[in-house]
Amino acid sequence: MNLRSIPFSIIAACLTVGTVLPAAAQTDPLPSWNDTASKKVIVAFVEKVTKEGSADFVPVSERIAVFDNDGTLWPENPVPFQLAFASYEITRLLPDHPEWNDDPAIQAFKKGDLAALLADHAKGLLRIVALTHAGMTTEEFDQRVKDWVAEDRHPRFERPYTQCIYQPMLELLAYLRAHGFQTWVVSGGGKDFMRVWSEDVYGIPPERVVGSHGQLKFAMKDGKPTLTKTLDTVFVDDKEGKPVGIQQSIGRRPIAAFGNSDGDQAMIEYTTIDNPHPSFGLIVHHTDSEREYAYDAETKSSGKLVTALAEAKERGWTVVDMKADWKSVFPPER
Amino acid sequence: MNLRSIPFSIIAACLTVGTVLPAAAQTDPLPSWNDTASKKVIVAFVEKVTKEGSADFVPVSERIAVFDNDGTLWPENPVPFQLAFASYEITRLLPDHPEWNDDPAIQAFKKGDLAALLADHAKGLLRIVALTHAGMTTEEFDQRVKDWVAEDRHPRFERPYTQCIYQPMLELLAYLRAHGFQTWVVSGGGKDFMRVWSEDVYGIPPERVVGSHGQLKFAMKDGKPTLTKTLDTVFVDDKEGKPVGIQQSIGRRPIAAFGNSDGDQAMIEYTTIDNPHPSFGLIVHHTDSEREYAYDAETKSSGKLVTALAEAKERGWTVVDMKADWKSVFPPER
Repeated sequence: MNLRSIPFSIIAACLTVGTVLPAAAQTDPLPSWNDTASKKVIVAFVEKVTKEGSADFVPVSERIAVFDNDGTLWPENPVPFQLAFASYEITRLLPDHPEWNDDPAIQAFKKGDLAALLADHAKGLLRIVALTHAGMTTEEFDQRVKDWVAEDRHPRFERPYTQCIYQPMLELLAYLRAHGFQTWVVSGGGKDFMRVWSEDVYGIPPERVVGSHGQLKFAMKDGKPTLTKTLDTVFVDDKEGKPVGIQQSIGRRPIAAFGNSDGDQAMIEYTTIDNPHPSFGLIVHHTDSEREYAYDAETKSSGKLVTALAEAKERGWTVVDMKADWKSVFPPER
Repeated sequence: MNLRSIPFSIIAACLTVGTVLPAAAQTDPLPSWNDTASKKVIVAFVEKVTKEGSADFVPVSERIAVFDNDGTLWPENPVPFQLAFASYEITRLLPDHPEWNDDPAIQAFKKGDLAALLADHAKGLLRIVALTHAGMTTEEFDQRVKDWVAEDRHPRFERPYTQCIYQPMLELLAYLRAHGFQTWVVSGGGKDFMRVWSEDVYGIPPERVVGSHGQLKFAMKDGKPTLTKTLDTVFVDDKEGKPVGIQQSIGRRPIAAFGNSDGDQAMIEYTTIDNPHPSFGLIVHHTDSEREYAYDAETKSSGKLVTALAEAKERGWTVVDMKADWKSVFPPER
């Protein structure tokens, strides 16, 4: 096809999709959501709590929305993306560390032998984390994550991992912020790992990223202040850790929580049960093997969803059916 | 004196001091600061980093200012105020706990015997903290702090502790925020203790309070989600802990740090040394025994100031001489 035969206005419209939308879509804050029940309850909740003078009104300072990351804002298949980062790092560093070839943890990791890595209190996995996430300054770690973002590609979607993010959720984040909500990431993933790109990708600044983390060590080195990452007193921001992480970092109870797995159940309970304000819980159910992945009870990666799905029904949490509810999954490639 | 003999306009002016200022003062964002060098360097720094197009310009997202609390935003004499809260709590709870009368930690605490409390790795002090700061839900603790704020009075200034705050520093907080700065508390004091009143008193919301804290425990109790305060893995946000607390909570290097003791030295180093942005360090030197307190090297309470004062001279940190630099110390009584 000769590009010249296409009117320029159509090319321009294609190129600017996602930034300039047709007039009709401009009035829809969630254009990548189909007009199904999920979208309607989201909009109804936001309108309810932001309507001044109504009994359900929530002041701006209390409009806290928390989002799980893996499986809620971006995929967690074929492996959680932070594991892809660790793998990238091991491969990159291996030539300088021939002694690693005799390391059983490295061998298991290269083979993808999760059982071996998790044996003996996850000794092997902790060794991999220690090699890729500790022993360097926070600035050095940030640079490593930036390099991975720039260089690595998702094996199936063939784009940078930070472009494998859910377009409907990006719209939801922006929609909530436009209505005075603070949006926070509350993830089992590494806090330092996510902070490097969360502002650019989600519009969520580093101080609003809650995640797993080890302690840091401050020291002056060559006359310069440094913070070195360690694996001392690791806090795991998952399951019952999520409400703890929320309270430690935010200090207020959220009124909206978004997750996709049993690991998010405590966070959604904390948000929606006995909350003095109106509240909202949502679970993204991965039902779309064609455009993304389909999994819940049986999963080889993270994201097991059984008890939270049962509780969702009981408590009236919204369950998003990815296949039915989402018009598109990923944003157009940059 | 007969109030009726005073023109109403003068009474009104007195009543509204602090809210409606004379026309001349309205143009001065720091009216409680004398026109000495300290005020001039503060204003010069803020003007420099907020002037668009200048080489020293710092974008809004990077304008992070961190403030120590005890001795920087409010006094730490005759004892740190959180210790006054603990004392208030012990006295309140004692009638229901006759067994405490045989507790050596309680006995030492009632006598003010700090040496005994700090003996054996501060075993006694930890016992007091355990009795007053742990074993209850975060909501119960918040209520206890609120009650203390409402009921207790500073022994010398005879007003609620939360009204014993430095008026010049309140103006500085507001001045920085008016210039796009995020203002954060970074204190050795308890995070949960400060969060209860920090928004009301300093205009600093709970999510911007960094402080010492123990771990929390999430559980459903009687069908309601609860977070219980524990003394597990206590993080001490003091000295080298301050840069760690900053990175864990904020994730960006501040460009301005305000403290008053050697406990703030690492925080000011982290802020001002090798920072890619222009940066500012300030130490409040307590030189005013008449209006507040005078102390530095020799202090029986907290707030020892020796090495940070020496480094201030060397590195050009601003040292506030409270007596000379501050026109007033506390706000008018409410």
